[in-house]
Amino acid sequence: MVNIGIIGYGYWGPNLVRNFFITNDCNVKRVVDARPDRLKSLNKIYPSVHVSTNSDDIFKDNEIEAVVIATPVFTHFQLAEKALNAGKHVLVEKPFTSNVDEANKLIDMADRKKKVIMVDHTFLYTGAVKKIKQLIDDGEIGNVKYFDSTRINFGLFQPDVNVLWDLAPHDISILQFISKAIPRSVNATGISHTHNDIENIAFLTVNYDDGMIAHFNCSWTSPVKIRTILIGGDKKMIVYNDNEPTEKVRIYQTSYDLKVNEEEIRKILVDYRTGDIFIPKVNHNEALAGMAADFINAISNGVKPISDCNLGLDVIKILEAAQKSIKNKGKEVTI
Amino acid sequence: MVNIGIIGYGYWGPNLVRNFFITNDCNVKRVVDARPDRLKSLNKIYPSVHVSTNSDDIFKDNEIEAVVIATPVFTHFQLAEKALNAGKHVLVEKPFTSNVDEANKLIDMADRKKKVIMVDHTFLYTGAVKKIKQLIDDGEIGNVKYFDSTRINFGLFQPDVNVLWDLAPHDISILQFISKAIPRSVNATGISHTHNDIENIAFLTVNYDDGMIAHFNCSWTSPVKIRTILIGGDKKMIVYNDNEPTEKVRIYQTSYDLKVNEEEIRKILVDYRTGDIFIPKVNHNEALAGMAADFINAISNGVKPISDCNLGLDVIKILEAAQKSIKNKGKEVTI
Amino acid sequence: MVNIGIIGYGYWGPNLVRNFFITNDCNVKRVVDARPDRLKSLNKIYPSVHVSTNSDDIFKDNEIEAVVIATPVFTHFQLAEKALNAGKHVLVEKPFTSNVDEANKLIDMADRKKKVIMVDHTFLYTGAVKKIKQLIDDGEIGNVKYFDSTRINFGLFQPDVNVLWDLAPHDISILQFISKAIPRSVNATGISHTHNDIENIAFLTVNYDDGMIAHFNCSWTSPVKIRTILIGGDKKMIVYNDNEPTEKVRIYQTSYDLKVNEEEIRKILVDYRTGDIFIPKVNHNEALAGMAADFINAISNGVKPISDCNLGLDVIKILEAAQKSIKNKGKEVTI
Amino acid sequence: MVNIGIIGYGYWGPNLVRNFFITNDCNVKRVVDARPDRLKSLNKIYPSVHVSTNSDDIFKDNEIEAVVIATPVFTHFQLAEKALNAGKHVLVEKPFTSNVDEANKLIDMADRKKKVIMVDHTFLYTGAVKKIKQLIDDGEIGNVKYFDSTRINFGLFQPDVNVLWDLAPHDISILQFISKAIPRSVNATGISHTHNDIENIAFLTVNYDDGMIAHFNCSWTSPVKIRTILIGGDKKMIVYNDNEPTEKVRIYQTSYDLKVNEEEIRKILVDYRTGDIFIPKVNHNEALAGMAADFINAISNGVKPISDCNLGLDVIKILEAAQKSIKNKGKEVTI
Repeated sequence: MVNIGIIGYGYWGPNLVRNFFITNDCNVKRVVDARPDRLKSLNKIYPSVHVSTNSDDIFKDNEIEAVVIATPVFTHFQLAEKALNAGKHVLVEKPFTSNVDEANKLIDMADRKKKVIMVDHTFLYTGAVKKIKQLIDDGEIGNVKYFDSTRINFGLFQPDVNVLWDLAPHDISILQFISKAIPRSVNATGISHTHNDIENIAFLTVNYDDGMIAHFNCSWTSPVKIRTILIGGDKKMIVYNDNEPTEKVRIYQTSYDLKVNEEEIRKILVDYRTGDIFIPKVNHNEALAGMAADFINAISNGVKPISDCNLGLDVIKILEAAQKSIKNKGKEVTI
Repeated sequence: MVNIGIIGYGYWGPNLVRNFFITNDCNVKRVVDARPDRLKSLNKIYPSVHVSTNSDDIFKDNEIEAVVIATPVFTHFQLAEKALNAGKHVLVEKPFTSNVDEANKLIDMADRKKKVIMVDHTFLYTGAVKKIKQLIDDGEIGNVKYFDSTRINFGLFQPDVNVLWDLAPHDISILQFISKAIPRSVNATGISHTHNDIENIAFLTVNYDDGMIAHFNCSWTSPVKIRTILIGGDKKMIVYNDNEPTEKVRIYQTSYDLKVNEEEIRKILVDYRTGDIFIPKVNHNEALAGMAADFINAISNGVKPISDCNLGLDVIKILEAAQKSIKNKGKEVTI
Repeated sequence: MVNIGIIGYGYWGPNLVRNFFITNDCNVKRVVDARPDRLKSLNKIYPSVHVSTNSDDIFKDNEIEAVVIATPVFTHFQLAEKALNAGKHVLVEKPFTSNVDEANKLIDMADRKKKVIMVDHTFLYTGAVKKIKQLIDDGEIGNVKYFDSTRINFGLFQPDVNVLWDLAPHDISILQFISKAIPRSVNATGISHTHNDIENIAFLTVNYDDGMIAHFNCSWTSPVKIRTILIGGDKKMIVYNDNEPTEKVRIYQTSYDLKVNEEEIRKILVDYRTGDIFIPKVNHNEALAGMAADFINAISNGVKPISDCNLGLDVIKILEAAQKSIKNKGKEVTI
Repeated sequence: MVNIGIIGYGYWGPNLVRNFFITNDCNVKRVVDARPDRLKSLNKIYPSVHVSTNSDDIFKDNEIEAVVIATPVFTHFQLAEKALNAGKHVLVEKPFTSNVDEANKLIDMADRKKKVIMVDHTFLYTGAVKKIKQLIDDGEIGNVKYFDSTRINFGLFQPDVNVLWDLAPHDISILQFISKAIPRSVNATGISHTHNDIENIAFLTVNYDDGMIAHFNCSWTSPVKIRTILIGGDKKMIVYNDNEPTEKVRIYQTSYDLKVNEEEIRKILVDYRTGDIFIPKVNHNEALAGMAADFINAISNGVKPISDCNLGLDVIKILEAAQKSIKNKGKEVTI
């Protein structure tokens, strides 16, 4: 039985508590939040959980083996460092940290202390993303040639991070999960309609050396909610539409081949193929329950979790480079 | 009655012939194409039209007042120049020319010779775009804050121009038609999966000085066809989905206001509004017929056409800058 | 404070408990279910609720003023009768009873005992149906000329009632809620693929004297889930699509007028109109919470609830007549 | 080379002329229509075609081997009879005739005169319906258990036939094409909002002896256009949505089995299955061109056409019975 403590009971906290409650071999011992009314509302549903407003109550508790950090991103590093120093395993909400340096330090520290440090990229535990991962690993779609994500809605403007840091971690974590290609550089552009240097619309291109490209379109100011990723392989193509209630993943037998024309070597001959569409049945289990179980399993059995810290670090590398590019008028920033 | 000659009877030519045939005060006198079989197939349907394989047959014909050029873009300048020198009005298929310099020269020449020179940006004559233009001119959506276009499909790879030059002219012409804001610069990224320096996927950001941004996502390699433009105003927002058979334009009463918090001046207060959606009935007349009539009207009555040469030039300015940016690793290029 | 007892903690019971818990001036005192494991799972979440396996524990409890019956339909009459005899207000899950006779008896009994008896037609409390009701009451769509409902999915075959008794109560309650027209008769057809006289597909037409018609298409054996109602007025038409997450109600400015041609009196001249579409913003509050509050309000303040017993009776009248028609080869059955 | 004459150049006539023009071994020699302006507009496009206002000009012309009848349904019998008497093959627009008696007479007459008589049920030549037919013939979906069609739009009220005779022939011809089951009887209901006994909304159930049912929902007064057919087999289910531009046919691995429970023989045990969805690529060739070629082929090579007269007769049998049922308050009418 792993006793855990959770820091932060805001927007995502109740989902974490609910899912760790139903996780085997796990006990939610304490939840900390600075707002007493949040803790009161927690105890109404879960009277057994200890609550307090000071996170040290978790760090000092020797019975607590693992800490879940669900606070604003700028606090992640300090809290995770304290937790590791107190000898605890750590799960951090996405995005991992505010910058690459912090992420590297935490990974090093966890490594030295032989503790699990893991980032909650929940999407990696959805049936849809697992299915896409499997299709790609099985060679079904061939080599990935492009990844084109749109995640826009009419959302809350965040006061501390821009729309890329808020929304793109979902899509970047999926990209890193399914693709083995190494990003070379990024270009990013955007606009802050609030004139506070926090972009509410942003566009990010990730460049590769090997004939692949990725693009991310993020916005808090779209009147419609779109959550679509196109993944083009050289054998087949996938459309992942997270808005679809049951038909999230579609596989298109659509592709093309390049033919070398020996005589006119400079002329490109393209051989087109379009065909059937296949919509596999996808598991609808709650992703967050899978993530919670994976964290407990990583602690108990010493296995590497799906959403591991290196993937979390890769996401931060891309976000940090994107930030730099966006502040430098879209110029290419090497990762 | 304006006698016209048409050069090029390829993909778009039959549509031009059909529409100029039903245009009032207009007679399609001659069609020129290098391929005799194309001319043969034309004469089966339109036995009255003169055909030949040499465009000089049009330039030399004094009865022909106007020339329609529907050939590959790299030929536009030379043919249009000849037509103007022969004292004829000119309609050029989009995009206007291969570069800004050529477009400027043609506009100057037409100006000196007092001839009409016009670019066929057909979309400006659709009921949907006319409705959007009217809504914006009437102040219905307020100031335009962003324009986000996606035009992707599984399309033919062009051998001479990249996907931006092929697809984006539609969207850029719409942007220039509805917005009075002056673009300052562009950033563009993309990839050529054919390794021939002709991008089949490209992303273009257009930057402005006054709190506006535009973005274009173009691809020939998407398994699904998407043709959507989001236009965000500070009063309302528009979604234009050209794939919808009857509900192309949607107006969302979705917006936000910024409030100044005097005490905490650095904190942005955003006041959100979502509301009803309105789908206006939109005229379904064929856009190309409207374009043809506008050209004949410009000639006969000396009025400025909707899709005039300066708008056509603006499109080339953005495309040329995009080309430069894409070849310079996405760096900002001033227009 | 109204103390209530709930009988039945199966599929719908947890939703009822959850919503009555958050209803003002209401206390869920006791829940009864024959299955101890269901009660155990209830007490995990709501340790304060008394549980037992015998419904008499509710009837005998003088502190309990009102009883909620969420059991199979064939038990409704007996339980509701007992509850009324015990001097309690009653809320019954839809459909009200197994036949018209039972419904009439319960209404009479409640009337004599001055108790509330109400049926849980939850859809009447949705933002979508309330908006439609308001539009019709305001004369926005004119006189209702037809009502065409499709409610099909791949659903559980019920062992005791056919698909009309299972699914159509939703749609018939909406019909009765929004329309003042009096149904004259019904025709119904269907098929029992299980060969047990319990239809899994059924079609129901409701006939009126005054130029209106209603139709219901119900199925447990459709691979796709459709929940659509078309409502045609002589001024406008409504499409209510319950599958749409946010755009459930659409108002079409589509209609036609009949013109009398004095000379050729037998020839019908129809004047067509199609126009804009309007999608009003609709309240997303949970319908069941509104229903629970309405029940408590009816008890506390003596006001007639929205989903009152006479509407519940009307639904049973149509279902009983449909049953008779379906067993008599679709012949017309007067209501 | 088969010379044909076409009677009727109204709504559908231009499509017939265009398609017979491109049919091999076929020459459109003469077109007859009572309206000279229609003939004039025809000759603008096809100057080679003889035109006249008297259909006898076709019957008397010995060079004309085959007649295409595209006139209102009440004239079909008389014109087809004259054509057969003049020794010509006949193609009739759907529906075949005004009643079963006429259809039987024409089939007998054609049989005696050894002439082709065929009905233009165009949908049988679409890629979608051909694919569905093939799937069913290959046993892919198992035994057909239901067929549920919705064909509604905001359409022209016909002055002479009701909405079933106007719209349902499409769907009934598809039903008869794909299913070998013999309809036993029908029930139909409907309403005439024009009060002229011509229903603008109608619902038709077709009953079978062998555990199958078919249903048709037709309307000229829907604000939305729906053209959907659900086909349920005991192995898989098909959804055919003719509004979809490219994804018209979907195959669902959704089904159920009935299990006999030996101990509780009366209790039905249903074993549910839902699974992947498959959208086959479907040929987009113009259906009418296939129909025209099939007619010419039947004449030239003596093969039975796909849309043969017996299928056309079956459609009329169902329509006539539906008419009788609708005028007898929905009572069952044996076919």
